[in-house]
Amino acid sequence: MPVNKFPGRFITFEGGEGGGKSVQLARFAEYLRARGQDVVTTREPGGTPVGKEIRRLLVEGDKDKFDEVAETLLFYADRRINLSKIVFPALKAGKCVLSDRFNDSTIAYQYYGSAKFADTSVMDGLYKIVAGDFKPDLTFLLDIDPRLGLARSFRKAETMDIKELRFENVDISFHERLRRGYLELAAAAPERFVIIDASKSMDEVAAAVINAYERRAATLRR
Amino acid sequence: MPVNKFPGRFITFEGGEGGGKSVQLARFAEYLRARGQDVVTTREPGGTPVGKEIRRLLVEGDKDKFDEVAETLLFYADRRINLSKIVFPALKAGKCVLSDRFNDSTIAYQYYGSAKFADTSVMDGLYKIVAGDFKPDLTFLLDIDPRLGLARSFRKAETMDIKELRFENVDISFHERLRRGYLELAAAAPERFVIIDASKSMDEVAAAVINAYERRAATLRR
Repeated sequence: MPVNKFPGRFITFEGGEGGGKSVQLARFAEYLRARGQDVVTTREPGGTPVGKEIRRLLVEGDKDKFDEVAETLLFYADRRINLSKIVFPALKAGKCVLSDRFNDSTIAYQYYGSAKFADTSVMDGLYKIVAGDFKPDLTFLLDIDPRLGLARSFRKAETMDIKELRFENVDISFHERLRRGYLELAAAAPERFVIIDASKSMDEVAAAVINAYERRAATLRR
Repeated sequence: MPVNKFPGRFITFEGGEGGGKSVQLARFAEYLRARGQDVVTTREPGGTPVGKEIRRLLVEGDKDKFDEVAETLLFYADRRINLSKIVFPALKAGKCVLSDRFNDSTIAYQYYGSAKFADTSVMDGLYKIVAGDFKPDLTFLLDIDPRLGLARSFRKAETMDIKELRFENVDISFHERLRRGYLELAAAAPERFVIIDASKSMDEVAAAVINAYERRAATLRR
């Protein structure tokens, strides 16, 4: 079984749009810090200065500027930089690292969502290259019906005056494949995943994350 | 044996610094065009608009901003974009594609030169992902003693007023490993490689390239 051999714990937040990953990660970091833990937070893509430039290549411009294979390679280049510059050094120093998205997002978006790969062998090969047999200790899947999640994202976008994000431009079936993908990944690795109902209020979700963490903490290494 | 199954020919120019790859590629393109061939030229890294941005990430800034694994992933992302956007479409259309560097440069620089990988398995796995079993029809290795090649590069840099390129900053053993790497790759695939003595004058090298091409043309597919 793949493992995290470092002294620190690595915990990832995963899920589709509007599940509140960033907010919940920040609140959980606050909770751990209040309990005296040394916490480092990061995100994918774009957790490092070079990663931010790779993120820009991934999200900006014509979506046909490269294909799904090049896109996937860029995600793993960003992952390697994030792991080697932020995650591994912090874990070696015994810190707890929280990541807003990690490898499950690549599988969910590039394999299940885009549906352009026959299987996950490309991702599996790239994961091995960038991470070896390292795996997160715990993954919170903030699960939400995409219609509700997207509606939340749109309200947030409206507040931020992002006009181009409109419901009628969204391919809902993509987001449904994405959700099914995450749930399949969680079902295949129950020892690592905790599925959180992210349709609830922010406070309820934050409490559910902490609750699940406390229940799991006993069985986590260290 | 890996092959190019497209109607067009793919020919790569490889070698260390100061061997005159770019000039020789341009002259060879001129020769082919004069004989009525439809020729497309490209380069790695940076043969496409996104590739140029990846090239900038690779060559600019602090060299410790990412490690050798991330660097290699970025080279293959650039390669995939170049293959899918420029090389494959041109070959499908029956054009002859000339590339200033290709996969042999990654093996020579990242494996032999940097000496940070235990073997070429990372590169071999990534090549398979981006190119499958596709290979160039012909590769010109412009071979030159690194002391002579670097001296040429420095003269060119002086003309261009590039002050930071100075002989005393160069790790000559790196360039010697690089040369040995290219020669080993050529020895392992004699059906694909032609070794050209690049210490000669530009005109002599250009003539040697055309000569070698004409001798090989009979045995090349089509």
